[in-house]
Amino acid sequence: MALIVQKYGGSSVSDAERIKRVAERIVASRKAGDDVVVVVSAMGDTTDELLDLAHRVSPVPAGRELDMLLTSGERISMALLAMAIHNLGFEARSYTGSQAGVITTSVHGKARIIDVTPGRLRSALDEGAITIVAGFQGVSQDTKDITTLGRGGSDTTAVALAAALRADVCEIYTDVDGVFSADPRIVANARHIKQITYEEMLELAACGAKVLHLRSVEYARRAGLPIHVRSSYSQNTGTMVTGAMEDLPVEQALITGVAHDRSEAKITIVAVPDEPGAAARIFQTVADAETNIDMIVQNVSTGVVGPQRTGRTDISFTLPKADGPTAMAALSKIKESVGFEDLLYDEHVGKVSLVGAGMRSHPGVAAKFFASLGEAGVNIEMISTSEIRVSVVCRDTDLDAAVRAVHAAFDLGGAEEAVVYAGTGR
Amino acid sequence: MALIVQKYGGSSVSDAERIKRVAERIVASRKAGDDVVVVVSAMGDTTDELLDLAHRVSPVPAGRELDMLLTSGERISMALLAMAIHNLGFEARSYTGSQAGVITTSVHGKARIIDVTPGRLRSALDEGAITIVAGFQGVSQDTKDITTLGRGGSDTTAVALAAALRADVCEIYTDVDGVFSADPRIVANARHIKQITYEEMLELAACGAKVLHLRSVEYARRAGLPIHVRSSYSQNTGTMVTGAMEDLPVEQALITGVAHDRSEAKITIVAVPDEPGAAARIFQTVADAETNIDMIVQNVSTGVVGPQRTGRTDISFTLPKADGPTAMAALSKIKESVGFEDLLYDEHVGKVSLVGAGMRSHPGVAAKFFASLGEAGVNIEMISTSEIRVSVVCRDTDLDAAVRAVHAAFDLGGAEEAVVYAGTGR
Repeated sequence: MALIVQKYGGSSVSDAERIKRVAERIVASRKAGDDVVVVVSAMGDTTDELLDLAHRVSPVPAGRELDMLLTSGERISMALLAMAIHNLGFEARSYTGSQAGVITTSVHGKARIIDVTPGRLRSALDEGAITIVAGFQGVSQDTKDITTLGRGGSDTTAVALAAALRADVCEIYTDVDGVFSADPRIVANARHIKQITYEEMLELAACGAKVLHLRSVEYARRAGLPIHVRSSYSQNTGTMVTGAMEDLPVEQALITGVAHDRSEAKITIVAVPDEPGAAARIFQTVADAETNIDMIVQNVSTGVVGPQRTGRTDISFTLPKADGPTAMAALSKIKESVGFEDLLYDEHVGKVSLVGAGMRSHPGVAAKFFASLGEAGVNIEMISTSEIRVSVVCRDTDLDAAVRAVHAAFDLGGAEEAVVYAGTGR
Repeated sequence: MALIVQKYGGSSVSDAERIKRVAERIVASRKAGDDVVVVVSAMGDTTDELLDLAHRVSPVPAGRELDMLLTSGERISMALLAMAIHNLGFEARSYTGSQAGVITTSVHGKARIIDVTPGRLRSALDEGAITIVAGFQGVSQDTKDITTLGRGGSDTTAVALAAALRADVCEIYTDVDGVFSADPRIVANARHIKQITYEEMLELAACGAKVLHLRSVEYARRAGLPIHVRSSYSQNTGTMVTGAMEDLPVEQALITGVAHDRSEAKITIVAVPDEPGAAARIFQTVADAETNIDMIVQNVSTGVVGPQRTGRTDISFTLPKADGPTAMAALSKIKESVGFEDLLYDEHVGKVSLVGAGMRSHPGVAAKFFASLGEAGVNIEMISTSEIRVSVVCRDTDLDAAVRAVHAAFDLGGAEEAVVYAGTGR
């Protein structure tokens, strides 16, 4: 008898009918003899609807109250799911993040899990009940206030509970059959990946693959917990995320897949004085504005805004579009004191990345990647690399073409067309 | 500086605009220098919508999960109200029933408050914050599960918190200016009542006046806490519910008001053997079905279903319509063993009641009451009395006429027409 943690996203429980189907799936696992802990997100668009309500009463809702508001979403979905399971003749009990022992920091909207004390879940499991837990939420260790983990937090809840309960596997149910060599919505013959390492999955998630949230993969790697990514609309096997790269066969594929991201914007700081401390002041300012930056590129000034001068450089970086206005406002304030010339904001950028554990011993990968983009007529604006990844920033309108070109150049396609199920959100 | 507990019902917070108006009202009290604790119900029809969702996944939702589901309603309204108060520049914090220390029995859907430990509220008040508490909900002492107090439970939450915090007054905001000598929707010149005793208010609430929930009045009487019933749509003074009858001036009005109720049904058990234990078995059966019965009348069999026999009686009683099917099913099962003849169910009944602390020393009240009904052509089907109340059951189609006739006969009308504000639900 195994202990399985299953996580279902918002689109899997978006209405009464889907909730009943998920209940059947959970009961099937229970009937197979396994103990089941279920982590569930809010139904469909509930979170967005609640956010909309909040903005109708206050332009800048307080974080504590926003977390109180949003956590009602999972409360609704988990109670309904428990009822649907009862209706199939099985015992089920729902627990809030707080009741399930998900202890977090007190940063509202972006709390991190500090500890998990799943005593109540353990008791319920011992009594034979299927336990349902609200994803995305916890309780602050210091203030005892309700917190949320931020977008994608339900994946992290599932992995954290699985680790704390020493579950055999954490199953993440989504709207695709797992991880593919590229987004099947863009590349029709994207190949299904049966197994992938934590490292590769981390790079793919960081580069925009939405199938798993970055933090949940980090958490699983630290805990050595296998994640099984599956579709809630099929019985197919899915993708196992597991093991360190060292454990894998040496003859593993050179390249795992192509990821893309259109959620970022690019800020360019023009003609920064090339003197010690300038870059540090700029990025401290951005960090103080609570902005996550991604790629940073510094190069000699191109002189686009004036005659070529020595002693000046341009600095560009990418960041989530949502953080753009805050970062621009913060940087504007230090224009005089740092002494740069201008600030440019561009939200029509896209990022395409090639990820593969095998590439670390194959120096030709980057060159082939750039060549394929050139042949497709895609202009490269920024480049960044890691040991097992190459990323470039291009125009957002070139992004789909770039993904297809790279996917074809590295011959990543499978024999069959990938299946995309109904529903695109998670 | 006083400590005031204010309770706002669902219609007062039914959308973003109304929430903002309630926030202004709360801030006005705070600005006047008082400490304010606010108890809030779920927005408008939220509870009914959640119930509907529950019934779509399960015909008989489990009580524990239903409570988990329904308590999300107040979570939403209280967080939005706190945000709206912040937006006016004042500090506000929302608390669930559990966080506010509302400890209850573990009967889901009908829990009773055992204790209130408002430590967190006290701390928040000491720090100058307006505290917002979810009405209608608590946490079970035994199981630590979330519970609800049943319909009207938010009034009880408000009174219980006010008592525990030793508040100066508990203000219950509703959609009318307080308590009237009859329902202003039926009697146009119903008189506004400035002050009323707990005893009279209890009788009125028990007889169908919806302005205050029975349990909250009982609680306030035990705690000696004044309740101020006011409209959330006006600045009028409202009705003070206070004091034991002994404290009131002796020359108080004979009659306080007329209440009516169309939520009950009548069950008649025909030709019950007139032997010891028969009635006891019948009402034990009804009680075991968790049904609250109201009036009971036993009279000699009229022989309507057969020839007049001796040694047999008819027993009639009224009960909430919602409990009707359960009670009928339970009684059908004992038909043979108790030996009664037939079981009649009638949901077209109405009840009209006359309440007044002064009537205990005036024996002519009941006679005048019956006479006024007779003149209005209203046939009386059942009669029940207490020291300060006379009630009759009649056809539901006669109910409005009955209320008007009794109100006029006792000259209860005021000089002005009563004002009814928008919104009828609470």
